[in-house]
Amino acid sequence: DKEVAICDDFYQNKVCGIIVSQAKDTKQYDHFEKLLQNGVLLIFYDRICTGVNCSRVVVDDYMGAFTAVTHMIDTGCKKIAFYGSPMNLEISKNRYNGYHDALLKHGLTENPDWVKICDDRANAEAITPDILIEEDRPDAFFAINDDTAIGILYTAKRMGFKVPEEISVCGFTNGDRAKACDPMLTTVEQRGVAVGEEAANILIGQVEGSIPRDEVEKRVVRTRLVVRGTTR
Amino acid sequence: DKEVAICDDFYQNKVCGIIVSQAKDTKQYDHFEKLLQNGVLLIFYDRICTGVNCSRVVVDDYMGAFTAVTHMIDTGCKKIAFYGSPMNLEISKNRYNGYHDALLKHGLTENPDWVKICDDRANAEAITPDILIEEDRPDAFFAINDDTAIGILYTAKRMGFKVPEEISVCGFTNGDRAKACDPMLTTVEQRGVAVGEEAANILIGQVEGSIPRDEVEKRVVRTRLVVRGTTR
Repeated sequence: DKEVAICDDFYQNKVCGIIVSQAKDTKQYDHFEKLLQNGVLLIFYDRICTGVNCSRVVVDDYMGAFTAVTHMIDTGCKKIAFYGSPMNLEISKNRYNGYHDALLKHGLTENPDWVKICDDRANAEAITPDILIEEDRPDAFFAINDDTAIGILYTAKRMGFKVPEEISVCGFTNGDRAKACDPMLTTVEQRGVAVGEEAANILIGQVEGSIPRDEVEKRVVRTRLVVRGTTR
Repeated sequence: DKEVAICDDFYQNKVCGIIVSQAKDTKQYDHFEKLLQNGVLLIFYDRICTGVNCSRVVVDDYMGAFTAVTHMIDTGCKKIAFYGSPMNLEISKNRYNGYHDALLKHGLTENPDWVKICDDRANAEAITPDILIEEDRPDAFFAINDDTAIGILYTAKRMGFKVPEEISVCGFTNGDRAKACDPMLTTVEQRGVAVGEEAANILIGQVEGSIPRDEVEKRVVRTRLVVRGTTR
Protein backbone atom coordinates (compact mmCIF):
# COMPACT_ATOMS: atom_id res chain seq x y z
CA ASP A 1 0.00 0.00 0.00
CA LYS A 2 2.82 2.33 0.90
CA GLU A 3 4.47 1.41 -2.39
CA VAL A 4 1.29 2.37 -4.28
CA ALA A 5 1.04 5.70 -2.44
CA ILE A 6 4.65 6.53 -3.18
CA CYS A 7 4.18 5.73 -6.86
CA ASP A 8 1.14 8.02 -6.96
CA ASP A 9 3.19 10.71 -5.36
CA PHE A 10 5.94 10.36 -7.94
CA TYR A 11 3.31 10.55 -10.68
CA GLN A 12 1.77 13.73 -9.29
CA ASN A 13 5.17 15.30 -9.09
CA LYS A 14 6.11 14.39 -12.65
CA VAL A 15 9.46 12.76 -12.00
CA CYS A 16 11.13 11.52 -15.16
CA GLY A 17 12.30 8.21 -13.83
CA ILE A 18 12.45 6.01 -10.77
CA ILE A 19 14.91 3.38 -9.61
CA VAL A 20 12.88 0.86 -7.68
CA SER A 21 13.15 -2.41 -5.77
CA GLN A 22 9.70 -3.88 -5.28
CA ALA A 23 8.31 -4.56 -1.83
CA LYS A 24 8.53 -8.16 -0.63
CA ASP A 25 4.77 -8.49 -0.59
CA THR A 26 3.89 -6.77 -3.86
CA LYS A 27 1.49 -8.85 -5.92
CA GLN A 28 -0.42 -6.27 -7.97
CA TYR A 29 1.44 -4.15 -10.45
CA ASP A 30 -1.12 -1.48 -11.47
CA HIS A 31 0.77 1.29 -9.74
CA PHE A 32 3.87 0.50 -11.77
CA GLU A 33 1.90 0.13 -15.02
CA LYS A 34 0.28 3.51 -14.50
CA LEU A 35 3.65 5.20 -14.23
CA LEU A 36 4.95 3.43 -17.33
CA GLN A 37 1.91 4.35 -19.39
CA ASN A 38 2.49 7.96 -18.45
CA GLY A 39 6.02 7.97 -19.71
CA VAL A 40 7.81 7.65 -16.40
CA LEU A 41 10.92 5.49 -16.71
CA LEU A 42 11.20 2.63 -14.26
CA ILE A 43 14.44 0.79 -13.53
CA PHE A 44 14.10 -2.20 -11.24
CA TYR A 45 16.97 -3.58 -9.17
CA ASP A 46 17.37 -6.42 -6.67
CA ARG A 47 13.73 -7.37 -6.13
CA ILE A 48 12.64 -6.90 -9.71
CA CYS A 49 9.10 -7.12 -10.89
CA THR A 50 8.79 -9.67 -13.69
CA GLY A 51 5.14 -8.77 -14.21
CA VAL A 52 6.15 -5.41 -15.68
CA ASN A 53 8.17 -5.11 -18.85
CA CYS A 54 10.89 -2.62 -18.07
CA SER A 55 14.58 -2.19 -17.52
CA ARG A 56 16.28 -4.00 -14.70
CA VAL A 57 19.60 -4.55 -13.00
CA VAL A 58 20.09 -7.79 -11.15
CA VAL A 59 23.02 -9.60 -9.62
CA ASP A 60 23.87 -13.07 -10.85
CA ASP A 61 21.87 -14.67 -8.05
CA TYR A 62 21.98 -18.13 -9.57
CA MET A 63 25.75 -18.18 -10.01
CA GLY A 64 26.32 -16.53 -6.62
CA ALA A 65 24.35 -19.26 -4.89
CA PHE A 66 25.84 -22.04 -7.03
CA THR A 67 29.39 -20.90 -6.19
CA ALA A 68 28.67 -20.56 -2.47
CA VAL A 69 27.08 -23.99 -2.14
CA THR A 70 29.83 -25.57 -4.25
CA HIS A 71 32.38 -24.04 -1.85
CA MET A 72 30.62 -25.65 1.11
CA ILE A 73 30.53 -29.01 -0.67
CA ASP A 74 34.21 -28.71 -1.63
CA THR A 75 35.11 -28.13 2.02
CA GLY A 76 33.35 -31.30 3.13
CA CYS A 77 29.72 -30.38 3.76
CA LYS A 78 27.17 -32.94 2.59
CA LYS A 79 23.88 -31.92 4.17
CA ILE A 80 23.12 -28.37 3.22
CA ALA A 81 19.99 -26.43 4.18
CA PHE A 82 18.52 -23.44 2.32
CA TYR A 83 16.75 -20.49 3.97
CA GLY A 84 15.09 -18.12 1.49
CA SER A 85 12.26 -15.69 0.84
CA PRO A 86 8.98 -16.80 -0.73
CA MET A 87 9.47 -18.05 -4.27
CA ASN A 88 7.36 -15.28 -5.83
CA LEU A 89 10.51 -13.19 -5.54
CA GLU A 90 12.93 -13.69 -8.42
CA ILE A 91 15.99 -13.42 -6.17
CA SER A 92 14.68 -16.21 -3.99
CA LYS A 93 13.85 -18.48 -6.93
CA ASN A 94 17.20 -17.87 -8.59
CA ARG A 95 19.25 -18.37 -5.44
CA TYR A 96 17.30 -21.52 -4.65
CA ASN A 97 17.97 -22.83 -8.16
CA GLY A 98 21.69 -22.17 -7.75
CA TYR A 99 21.62 -24.07 -4.45
CA HIS A 100 19.61 -26.90 -5.93
CA ASP A 101 21.80 -27.31 -9.00
CA ALA A 102 25.02 -27.25 -6.98
CA LEU A 103 23.74 -30.17 -4.90
CA LEU A 104 22.60 -32.00 -8.03
CA LYS A 105 25.91 -31.51 -9.80
CA HIS A 106 27.77 -33.02 -6.85
CA GLY A 107 25.46 -35.99 -6.51
CA LEU A 108 23.84 -34.80 -3.27
CA THR A 109 20.12 -35.01 -2.67
CA GLU A 110 18.08 -32.18 -1.30
CA ASN A 111 16.17 -32.74 1.91
CA PRO A 112 12.86 -30.86 1.51
CA ASP A 113 12.64 -30.47 5.31
CA TRP A 114 15.71 -28.28 5.15
CA VAL A 115 14.38 -25.83 2.56
CA LYS A 116 12.75 -23.08 4.60
CA ILE A 117 10.90 -19.85 3.94
CA CYS A 118 12.92 -17.70 6.32
CA ASP A 119 14.64 -14.42 5.50
CA ASP A 120 15.32 -12.60 8.73
CA ARG A 121 17.31 -13.15 11.87
CA ALA A 122 14.47 -13.46 14.37
CA ASN A 123 12.80 -16.12 12.27
CA ALA A 124 16.08 -17.95 11.77
CA GLU A 125 16.65 -18.01 15.54
CA ALA A 126 13.10 -19.32 16.00
CA ILE A 127 13.19 -22.22 13.53
CA THR A 128 16.81 -23.39 13.63
CA PRO A 129 16.81 -25.12 17.05
CA ASP A 130 14.19 -27.65 15.86
CA ILE A 131 16.36 -28.52 12.88
CA LEU A 132 19.64 -28.78 14.79
CA ILE A 133 18.21 -30.81 17.66
CA GLU A 134 17.57 -33.77 15.35
CA GLU A 135 20.06 -36.61 15.06
CA ASP A 136 19.96 -36.22 11.30
CA ARG A 137 20.76 -32.54 10.93
CA PRO A 138 22.37 -30.27 8.34
CA ASP A 139 26.11 -29.67 8.46
CA ALA A 140 25.76 -26.44 6.49
CA PHE A 141 23.29 -23.61 5.87
CA PHE A 142 23.04 -21.31 2.89
CA ALA A 143 20.90 -18.23 3.62
CA ILE A 144 19.43 -15.65 1.25
CA ASN A 145 20.91 -12.75 3.23
CA ASP A 146 23.47 -12.03 5.94
CA ASP A 147 20.90 -11.24 8.59
CA THR A 148 19.37 -14.70 8.32
CA ALA A 149 22.82 -16.31 8.24
CA ILE A 150 23.74 -14.49 11.46
CA GLY A 151 20.58 -15.84 13.11
CA ILE A 152 21.62 -19.37 12.16
CA LEU A 153 25.23 -18.81 13.22
CA TYR A 154 24.39 -17.59 16.72
CA THR A 155 21.72 -20.24 17.24
CA ALA A 156 24.22 -22.96 16.33
CA LYS A 157 26.84 -21.45 18.65
CA ARG A 158 24.34 -21.13 21.48
CA MET A 159 23.44 -24.80 21.07
CA GLY A 160 27.11 -25.70 21.48
CA PHE A 161 28.02 -26.46 17.88
CA LYS A 162 31.41 -25.41 16.60
CA VAL A 163 31.33 -23.09 13.58
CA PRO A 164 32.69 -23.93 11.04
CA GLU A 165 33.97 -27.32 12.22
CA GLU A 166 30.53 -28.83 12.76
CA ILE A 167 28.24 -26.34 11.05
CA SER A 168 29.12 -24.12 8.08
CA VAL A 169 27.10 -20.98 7.40
CA CYS A 170 27.07 -18.79 4.31
CA GLY A 171 25.06 -15.62 3.71
CA PHE A 172 24.40 -13.32 0.78
CA THR A 173 24.94 -9.52 0.77
CA ASN A 174 28.29 -8.79 2.44
CA GLY A 175 26.99 -5.76 4.30
CA ASP A 176 28.36 -4.18 7.47
CA ARG A 177 26.96 -7.00 9.58
CA ALA A 178 29.05 -9.68 7.87
CA LYS A 179 32.33 -8.47 9.33
CA ALA A 180 30.88 -7.57 12.73
CA CYS A 181 29.76 -11.08 13.65
CA ASP A 182 31.91 -13.71 15.33
CA PRO A 183 33.35 -15.51 13.45
CA MET A 184 33.16 -13.20 10.45
CA LEU A 185 30.65 -14.41 7.90
CA THR A 186 31.37 -16.17 4.63
CA THR A 187 28.99 -14.51 2.19
CA VAL A 188 28.24 -13.74 -1.44
CA GLU A 189 29.13 -10.12 -2.10
CA GLN A 190 26.27 -8.35 -3.78
CA ARG A 191 28.02 -5.17 -4.80
CA GLY A 192 25.08 -2.90 -4.14
CA VAL A 193 27.00 0.16 -5.26
CA ALA A 194 27.68 -1.37 -8.68
CA VAL A 195 24.00 -2.26 -9.00
CA GLY A 196 23.03 1.31 -8.12
CA GLU A 197 25.49 2.69 -10.63
CA GLU A 198 24.18 0.49 -13.43
CA ALA A 199 20.60 1.44 -12.61
CA ALA A 200 21.52 5.13 -12.59
CA ASN A 201 23.41 4.72 -15.88
CA ILE A 202 20.35 3.25 -17.57
CA LEU A 203 18.09 5.96 -16.19
CA ILE A 204 20.42 8.79 -17.18
CA GLY A 205 21.00 7.22 -20.59
CA GLN A 206 17.27 7.01 -21.23
CA VAL A 207 16.58 10.52 -19.97
CA GLU A 208 19.40 12.00 -22.04
CA GLY A 209 18.61 9.88 -25.06
CA SER A 210 21.75 7.79 -25.48
CA ILE A 211 19.59 4.73 -24.72
CA PRO A 212 16.19 4.61 -26.45
CA ARG A 213 13.43 5.23 -23.92
CA ASP A 214 11.38 2.29 -25.13
CA GLU A 215 14.26 -0.15 -24.94
CA VAL A 216 14.16 -2.67 -22.11
CA GLU A 217 17.71 -2.77 -20.76
CA LYS A 218 18.72 -5.80 -18.73
CA ARG A 219 22.04 -5.76 -16.94
CA VAL A 220 23.64 -8.27 -14.63
CA VAL A 221 26.21 -7.39 -11.98
CA ARG A 222 28.60 -10.16 -11.00
CA THR A 223 28.83 -11.36 -7.42
CA ARG A 224 31.86 -12.91 -5.76
CA LEU A 225 32.19 -15.29 -2.85
CA VAL A 226 33.95 -13.84 0.20
CA VAL A 227 35.25 -16.72 2.31
CA ARG A 228 35.63 -15.87 6.00
CA GLY A 229 35.34 -17.74 9.27
CA THR A 230 31.94 -19.44 9.09
CA THR A 231 32.94 -21.97 6.44
CA ARG A 232 35.86 -24.37 6.42
CA ASP B 1 42.20 17.17 -1.13
CA LYS B 2 39.28 15.15 -2.40
CA GLU B 3 36.99 17.29 -0.24
CA VAL B 4 38.41 20.45 -1.87
CA ALA B 5 37.92 19.01 -5.36
CA ILE B 6 34.33 18.03 -4.63
CA CYS B 7 33.58 21.50 -3.28
CA ASP B 8 35.02 23.03 -6.45
CA ASP B 9 32.86 20.74 -8.47
CA PHE B 10 29.73 21.79 -6.55
CA TYR B 11 30.69 25.40 -7.10
CA GLN B 12 31.13 24.96 -10.85
CA ASN B 13 27.76 23.27 -11.04
CA LYS B 14 25.97 25.99 -9.11
CA VAL B 15 24.18 23.84 -6.54
CA CYS B 16 22.11 25.88 -4.10
CA GLY B 17 23.14 24.05 -0.96
CA ILE B 18 25.19 21.19 0.42
CA ILE B 19 24.80 18.98 3.45
CA VAL B 20 28.31 18.13 4.55
CA SER B 21 30.27 16.23 7.21
CA GLN B 22 33.87 17.34 7.12
CA ALA B 23 36.68 14.88 6.45
CA LYS B 24 38.56 13.62 9.51
CA ASP B 25 41.76 15.30 8.38
CA THR B 26 40.42 18.66 7.24
CA LYS B 27 42.44 21.53 8.68
CA GLN B 28 42.03 24.28 6.07
CA TYR B 29 38.62 25.69 5.40
CA ASP B 30 39.13 27.84 2.26
CA HIS B 31 37.10 25.50 0.09
CA PHE B 32 34.11 25.88 2.39
CA GLU B 33 34.57 29.65 2.71
CA LYS B 34 34.63 30.01 -1.07
CA LEU B 35 31.28 28.28 -1.39
CA LEU B 36 29.73 30.41 1.36
CA GLN B 37 30.97 33.64 -0.16
CA ASN B 38 29.34 32.63 -3.41
CA GLY B 39 25.96 32.14 -1.84
CA VAL B 40 25.99 28.36 -1.59
CA LEU B 41 24.26 27.16 1.57
CA LEU B 42 26.26 24.79 3.75
CA ILE B 43 24.74 22.63 6.46
CA PHE B 44 27.23 20.67 8.54
CA TYR B 45 26.34 17.51 10.42
CA ASP B 46 28.24 15.01 12.58
CA ARG B 47 31.81 16.17 11.96
CA ILE B 48 31.05 19.87 11.90
CA CYS B 49 33.53 22.55 11.01
CA THR B 50 33.76 25.10 13.82
CA GLY B 51 36.11 27.24 11.74
CA VAL B 52 33.25 28.16 9.42
CA ASN B 53 30.21 30.08 10.58
CA CYS B 54 27.25 28.20 9.20
CA SER B 55 24.31 26.03 10.08
CA ARG B 56 24.87 22.73 11.73
CA VAL B 57 23.11 19.69 13.11
CA VAL B 58 24.86 17.75 15.83
CA VAL B 59 23.89 15.04 18.24
CA ASP B 60 24.26 15.66 21.95
CA ASP B 61 27.68 14.03 22.01
CA TYR B 62 28.51 15.25 25.49
CA MET B 63 25.31 13.91 27.05
CA GLY B 64 25.48 10.69 25.06
CA ALA B 65 28.96 9.97 26.38
CA PHE B 66 28.12 11.13 29.90
CA THR B 67 25.10 8.82 30.05
CA ALA B 68 27.00 5.83 28.66
CA VAL B 69 29.93 6.17 31.07
CA THR B 70 27.56 6.76 33.99
CA HIS B 71 25.79 3.51 33.07
CA MET B 72 29.08 1.62 33.20
CA ILE B 73 29.93 3.16 36.57
CA ASP B 74 26.47 2.36 37.91
CA THR B 75 26.93 -1.28 36.93
CA GLY B 76 30.18 -1.57 38.86
CA CYS B 77 32.96 -0.45 36.50
CA LYS B 78 35.67 1.67 38.07
CA LYS B 79 38.50 1.77 35.58
CA ILE B 80 37.16 3.07 32.29
CA ALA B 81 39.21 3.67 29.14
CA PHE B 82 38.34 6.08 26.32
CA TYR B 83 39.12 5.48 22.61
CA GLY B 84 38.44 8.51 20.41
CA SER B 85 39.39 10.43 17.30
CA PRO B 86 41.91 13.28 17.40
CA MET B 87 40.67 16.19 19.51
CA ASN B 88 40.53 18.61 16.58
CA LEU B 89 37.18 16.99 15.82
CA GLU B 90 34.30 18.42 17.80
CA ILE B 91 32.61 15.05 18.24
CA SER B 92 35.77 13.63 19.76
CA LYS B 93 36.26 16.56 22.12
CA ASN B 94 32.63 16.55 23.22
CA ARG B 95 32.46 12.79 23.77
CA TYR B 96 35.72 12.89 25.67
CA ASN B 97 34.36 15.68 27.87
CA GLY B 98 31.24 13.63 28.60
CA TYR B 99 33.43 10.68 29.57
CA HIS B 100 35.73 12.84 31.67
CA ASP B 101 32.93 14.58 33.55
CA ALA B 102 31.10 11.32 34.28
CA LEU B 103 34.26 9.98 35.94
CA LEU B 104 34.73 13.24 37.84
CA LYS B 105 31.15 13.34 39.06
CA HIS B 106 31.48 9.81 40.46
CA GLY B 107 34.80 10.47 42.16
CA LEU B 108 36.86 8.37 39.77
CA THR B 109 40.19 9.51 38.42
CA GLU B 110 41.10 9.28 34.78
CA ASN B 111 44.18 7.27 33.86
CA PRO B 112 45.86 9.16 30.99
CA ASP B 113 47.38 5.90 29.73
CA TRP B 114 43.87 4.71 28.96
CA VAL B 115 42.83 7.66 26.83
CA LYS B 116 43.76 6.66 23.29
CA ILE B 117 43.56 8.16 19.83
CA CYS B 118 41.92 5.20 18.15
CA ASP B 119 38.77 5.23 16.05
CA ASP B 120 38.70 2.09 13.94
CA ARG B 121 38.56 -1.63 14.51
CA ALA B 122 41.98 -2.57 13.14
CA ASN B 123 43.67 -0.02 15.35
CA ALA B 124 41.63 -1.11 18.37
CA GLU B 125 42.69 -4.71 17.80
CA ALA B 126 46.31 -3.56 17.52
CA ILE B 127 46.55 -1.47 20.69
CA THR B 128 44.18 -3.23 23.11
CA PRO B 129 46.30 -6.32 23.92
CA ASP B 130 49.05 -4.15 25.45
CA ILE B 131 46.51 -2.50 27.72
CA LEU B 132 44.73 -5.69 28.78
CA ILE B 133 47.92 -7.66 29.43
CA GLU B 134 48.83 -5.38 32.34
CA GLU B 135 47.97 -6.31 35.92
CA ASP B 136 46.38 -2.90 36.35
CA ARG B 137 43.96 -2.83 33.43
CA PRO B 138 40.63 -1.21 32.59
CA ASP B 139 37.40 -3.00 33.45
CA ALA B 140 35.48 -1.00 30.84
CA PHE B 141 35.98 0.74 27.50
CA PHE B 142 33.99 3.58 25.99
CA ALA B 143 34.65 3.97 22.25
CA ILE B 144 33.77 6.82 19.90
CA ASN B 145 32.08 4.46 17.44
CA ASP B 146 30.77 0.91 17.16
CA ASP B 147 33.54 -0.27 14.88
CA THR B 148 36.19 0.56 17.47
CA ALA B 149 34.09 -0.97 20.25
CA ILE B 150 33.82 -4.21 18.26
CA GLY B 151 37.60 -4.29 17.88
CA ILE B 152 37.96 -3.99 21.66
CA LEU B 153 35.22 -6.57 22.31
CA TYR B 154 36.74 -9.27 20.12
CA THR B 155 40.27 -8.59 21.38
CA ALA B 156 39.10 -8.99 24.97
CA LYS B 157 37.23 -12.20 24.10
CA ARG B 158 40.23 -13.59 22.23
CA MET B 159 42.41 -12.91 25.27
CA GLY B 160 40.02 -14.95 27.39
CA PHE B 161 38.18 -12.17 29.22
CA LYS B 162 34.47 -12.54 29.86
CA VAL B 163 32.32 -9.76 28.42
CA PRO B 164 30.58 -8.12 30.24
CA GLU B 165 31.52 -9.84 33.53
CA GLU B 166 35.17 -8.81 33.44
CA ILE B 167 35.24 -6.19 30.70
CA SER B 168 32.39 -3.88 29.70
CA VAL B 169 32.37 -2.27 26.26
CA CYS B 170 30.20 0.55 24.96
CA GLY B 171 30.20 2.07 21.48
CA PHE B 172 28.55 5.06 19.82
CA THR B 173 26.44 4.93 16.62
CA ASN B 174 24.08 1.94 16.88
CA GLY B 175 24.54 0.95 13.25
CA ASP B 176 23.98 -2.46 11.66
CA ARG B 177 27.18 -3.78 13.19
CA ALA B 178 26.01 -3.26 16.77
CA LYS B 179 23.39 -6.01 16.64
CA ALA B 180 25.48 -8.37 14.52
CA CYS B 181 28.30 -8.79 17.02
CA ASP B 182 28.41 -11.33 19.83
CA PRO B 183 27.30 -10.35 22.41
CA MET B 184 25.26 -7.51 20.93
CA LEU B 185 26.81 -4.14 21.61
CA THR B 186 25.70 -1.60 24.18
CA THR B 187 25.93 1.69 22.33
CA VAL B 188 24.75 5.28 22.14
CA GLU B 189 22.19 5.57 19.37
CA GLN B 190 23.08 8.39 17.06
CA ARG B 191 19.84 8.58 15.10
CA GLY B 192 21.48 9.37 11.78
CA VAL B 193 18.15 9.56 10.01
CA ALA B 194 16.91 12.26 12.38
CA VAL B 195 20.15 14.18 11.86
CA GLY B 196 19.74 13.93 8.09
CA GLU B 197 16.14 15.09 8.32
CA GLU B 198 17.05 18.11 10.40
CA ALA B 199 19.85 19.02 8.01
CA ALA B 200 17.52 18.66 5.03
CA ASN B 201 14.85 20.73 6.82
CA ILE B 202 17.28 23.59 7.35
CA LEU B 203 18.49 23.44 3.75
CA ILE B 204 14.99 23.34 2.29
CA GLY B 205 13.84 26.07 4.65
CA GLN B 206 16.69 28.33 3.58
CA VAL B 207 16.21 27.61 -0.12
CA GLU B 208 12.46 28.21 0.06
CA GLY B 209 12.85 31.23 2.32
CA SER B 210 11.04 30.12 5.49
CA ILE B 211 14.40 30.35 7.25
CA PRO B 212 16.51 33.44 6.46
CA ARG B 213 19.49 32.44 4.32
CA ASP B 214 21.92 34.39 6.45
CA GLU B 215 20.72 32.86 9.69
CA VAL B 216 23.03 30.32 11.31
CA GLU B 217 20.76 27.50 12.47
CA LYS B 218 22.08 25.18 15.14
CA ARG B 219 20.10 22.08 15.99
CA VAL B 220 20.84 19.25 18.35
CA VAL B 221 19.44 15.75 17.97
CA ARG B 222 19.10 13.73 21.16
CA THR B 223 20.87 10.40 21.54
CA ARG B 224 19.76 7.52 23.73
CA LEU B 225 21.70 4.72 25.36
CA VAL B 226 20.86 1.24 24.05
CA VAL B 227 21.91 -1.30 26.68
CA ARG B 228 22.67 -4.74 25.23
CA GLY B 229 25.04 -7.58 26.08
CA THR B 230 28.46 -5.92 26.35
CA THR B 231 27.71 -4.07 29.59
CA ARG B 232 26.41 -5.46 32.87
